[in-house]
Amino acid sequence: MNFNQQLADYVGQVEAGIDRFLPPADERPTRLHTAMRYAMQGGGKRLRPVMALATAELFGAPADDALPAAMALECIHTYSLVHDDLPCMDDDDLRRGRATTHKAFDEATALLAGDALLTHAFVLLTVNYANRPAMAHALCRELAAAAGSRRLIGGQMEDLLAEKRTDVTAGDLDLIHLNKTAAMIEASLVMGGIVGGAETSTLDALRRIGRHLGLTFQIVDDILDATADTATLGKTAGKDAEADKTTYVKLHGIDTARRLADEQTAKAVRALAALPGDTAFLTALARKLTERKS
Amino acid sequence: MNFNQQLADYVGQVEAGIDRFLPPADERPTRLHTAMRYAMQGGGKRLRPVMALATAELFGAPADDALPAAMALECIHTYSLVHDDLPCMDDDDLRRGRATTHKAFDEATALLAGDALLTHAFVLLTVNYANRPAMAHALCRELAAAAGSRRLIGGQMEDLLAEKRTDVTAGDLDLIHLNKTAAMIEASLVMGGIVGGAETSTLDALRRIGRHLGLTFQIVDDILDATADTATLGKTAGKDAEADKTTYVKLHGIDTARRLADEQTAKAVRALAALPGDTAFLTALARKLTERKS
Repeated sequence: MNFNQQLADYVGQVEAGIDRFLPPADERPTRLHTAMRYAMQGGGKRLRPVMALATAELFGAPADDALPAAMALECIHTYSLVHDDLPCMDDDDLRRGRATTHKAFDEATALLAGDALLTHAFVLLTVNYANRPAMAHALCRELAAAAGSRRLIGGQMEDLLAEKRTDVTAGDLDLIHLNKTAAMIEASLVMGGIVGGAETSTLDALRRIGRHLGLTFQIVDDILDATADTATLGKTAGKDAEADKTTYVKLHGIDTARRLADEQTAKAVRALAALPGDTAFLTALARKLTERKS
Repeated sequence: MNFNQQLADYVGQVEAGIDRFLPPADERPTRLHTAMRYAMQGGGKRLRPVMALATAELFGAPADDALPAAMALECIHTYSLVHDDLPCMDDDDLRRGRATTHKAFDEATALLAGDALLTHAFVLLTVNYANRPAMAHALCRELAAAAGSRRLIGGQMEDLLAEKRTDVTAGDLDLIHLNKTAAMIEASLVMGGIVGGAETSTLDALRRIGRHLGLTFQIVDDILDATADTATLGKTAGKDAEADKTTYVKLHGIDTARRLADEQTAKAVRALAALPGDTAFLTALARKLTERKS
């Protein structure tokens, strides 16, 4: 399979996994379960679960074996978007070209659906790896740390606080995005490695690769917000400049931001080459992240 | 130690555990970590962690051994209150006699602090039982199931939906509270049992006891809302009647509600008597739950 076929295959597994691994929409409370599915079915790149599936395969695990972990990552990512879109946060009506969850349902339902997706990630890991408790524990530990107050949520909080400041430095911005964006990308690679039975030193290498890819992803996000249009992005473009938000583009300009993204990608690609197995897919994915248009 | 001394001792362990098991307030993001601590330091009965500590001790575990699990339960309970108090949910300004988290901070901070407490519960379990991965897994599994869309959050959603209906039955009300209230009380006893190394059949008995105590707790809550004043309760009294909410009191009247609570307590006390070890504390706690005035 070439890269695009392989990517489509992984994305297909994730999309099919939504139906398989989320509570049925007709199970009470049907409104809650319908909202959880609505949020998860919003499309998107499925970057985190795809990374987990591809990494597990690198270490010889059957792709299907990593699917519950991949879905858990997507549950966490999706909950963070649902809560981030709420009126008290970014107050966004549009996500991936359609109504955000609180617009399609209501605020209380979106709040609870987000809470439920966050919790469901741990249901998925503890139930589906129950016959391998040490693996289940390692997966829960990695995901909880990545999603917690020191990483994902911490990054969101620092990001909110930075919006009110005019003295945000390049160091602050890295700190925000190492937590808000890179933490979950690191966890995606590491959890794939855990399912594949990778050694501790290899998990450390995966974590470093995730860090580089996470920074790349965020820098490119900032560039796209400044240069692409809403229709292409599937979300409101130009929001950063309108809010006078400190971004890589505002701090460094488009050209330097572009160079920083390329540097991070190059580091990730070099580290990928040092891993065992066929890293062609993950390398192509890394390149695609820095070249993406939406 | 008599019951009150023992209770004060357990509550003291939990209160001291807040400082020990939550991220330091001076660690970035300080606003987030301060809000998490504020929410947890609001006092309250500490019912769930006390039950976990007492149950673990019943099976011979050192009380300290159950403390991380007890704190994880309190993190989940507290997050559910923080989110429940938000304007899009119950919109409450007062909780345990002081400002709710979104009033003391702001809505975005309260939302994220709730998310972070929920996630931190799994950080606590995975980090503090790391040298016993099978136990860590069992604890995470129990907590995730109790807190998920089919139990705690499901009960909250059904409760919200019921507020808009006039045809809520006794069966509906039991379903709401078996999930909204009893699920976490069941989990408290079961997680204490897991830390204590209890057999599966004993964990099942603990779950049934938790179910009875959870229903008792909720029925008494409804009675107190209808009969006590705001100062005694430390939260706004009479809200149920004002909202014309279906409660045990509205459905059955005060006297029958009282009898139902007593029946559930009696069932719990009988089941406690069949457990091994000295169940005097848990039995006294069960009685206290049904006789409480706030």
